[in-house]
Amino acid sequence: MKTRDRILEVSLLLFNEEGESELSSVDIANALEISPGNLYYHFKGKDAIIRALFDRFEEEMRVILRGSKGGLASVEDNWIYVYILLEEIYDFRFFYRDLAGLLARYPDLAVRFRSVAAGKRQTIARSIDDLEKLGLIQIDSRLKAPLADQIITTLTFWLAGDALSKEVHDGPALIHKTVFQVMCLFVPYMGEAGPAALGRMIRHFEETKG
Amino acid sequence: MKTRDRILEVSLLLFNEEGESELSSVDIANALEISPGNLYYHFKGKDAIIRALFDRFEEEMRVILRGSKGGLASVEDNWIYVYILLEEIYDFRFFYRDLAGLLARYPDLAVRFRSVAAGKRQTIARSIDDLEKLGLIQIDSRLKAPLADQIITTLTFWLAGDALSKEVHDGPALIHKTVFQVMCLFVPYMGEAGPAALGRMIRHFEETKG
Repeated sequence: MKTRDRILEVSLLLFNEEGESELSSVDIANALEISPGNLYYHFKGKDAIIRALFDRFEEEMRVILRGSKGGLASVEDNWIYVYILLEEIYDFRFFYRDLAGLLARYPDLAVRFRSVAAGKRQTIARSIDDLEKLGLIQIDSRLKAPLADQIITTLTFWLAGDALSKEVHDGPALIHKTVFQVMCLFVPYMGEAGPAALGRMIRHFEETKG
Repeated sequence: MKTRDRILEVSLLLFNEEGESELSSVDIANALEISPGNLYYHFKGKDAIIRALFDRFEEEMRVILRGSKGGLASVEDNWIYVYILLEEIYDFRFFYRDLAGLLARYPDLAVRFRSVAAGKRQTIARSIDDLEKLGLIQIDSRLKAPLADQIITTLTFWLAGDALSKEVHDGPALIHKTVFQVMCLFVPYMGEAGPAALGRMIRHFEETKG
């Protein structure tokens, strides 16, 4: 692995584990067992590392959001899609744990973050339309925007919400819990198929809890 | 007004306007045109002011949550109740704008914050039960906890979410938008009464936008 990639990999790990605000570029160099000078050769300070990590997040998110364009064929597809979205966010979870603080420290990222969020919202709105066209949900058109907003709120704050709760979940458990939470929002629109679909969701959720 | 009360009033105003982390106790003394020594006589530093403000928030929230015990008689009652909750949160909005940062700086408040959140959750669960008993909503009992979780997420992160959005709303507009957002979560459970209730909500929401 190239030094530049190793620096990004280890920085992401450390930021996710210990929080971005707690770490300096010297801490990162120490963890990598390279000199601060060598680190500086690749990245001019911690800011540059954060921005390079955001580049990656943005690029991967773009691919995932583009991937949804094929359209959803079932409620299970939607389940899997939400799961992929949450896993991607989880990989870069230090961005989301203290969003307000981070975006205050890096105002240029705030603009880009909003653009990622707008992409997410578009994708969710399309998923709602897809499920409706397939006849899997029936939804008053006036409720589509509030439903998309509600899902975006959950996708943005699930990590911060868990950090506030008494029993903090590990990553996979929290991802499954959040997919379940999002999918429950669709159930009341599923009509007669709702109770059975909910039953399947609960069984699936219980199984993944292990 | 007593000096102690004036200090709390002005501190709350400044924290809400400029952010708690930006301000020192000297800034607060300057805004009050009193000496730092006089401020110190009443509060031993900014921490003590934050804790006294949290005491107030906690007490007022307790009264509001207790007030809901009478039970809801209609969907409109629920609307008003959510409105009152949001207004109370808005009065102490500096707590909610950067929750993760604030609770990291004051870990003792994290425990108390969780207890307020648990109280909120109980009240919401009771509201769902009340609306069901009145026959105003019909909800699969397995969806009650996810619905309460969803509402709690919104009540906790509406201010942080708005701060991330491109068009930041003023206070009253944001409160109305959020009440509408919460109430939309009930609509799919209202059965045939849903579309008309949603129509009334939208009209009410448009009127309050002015």
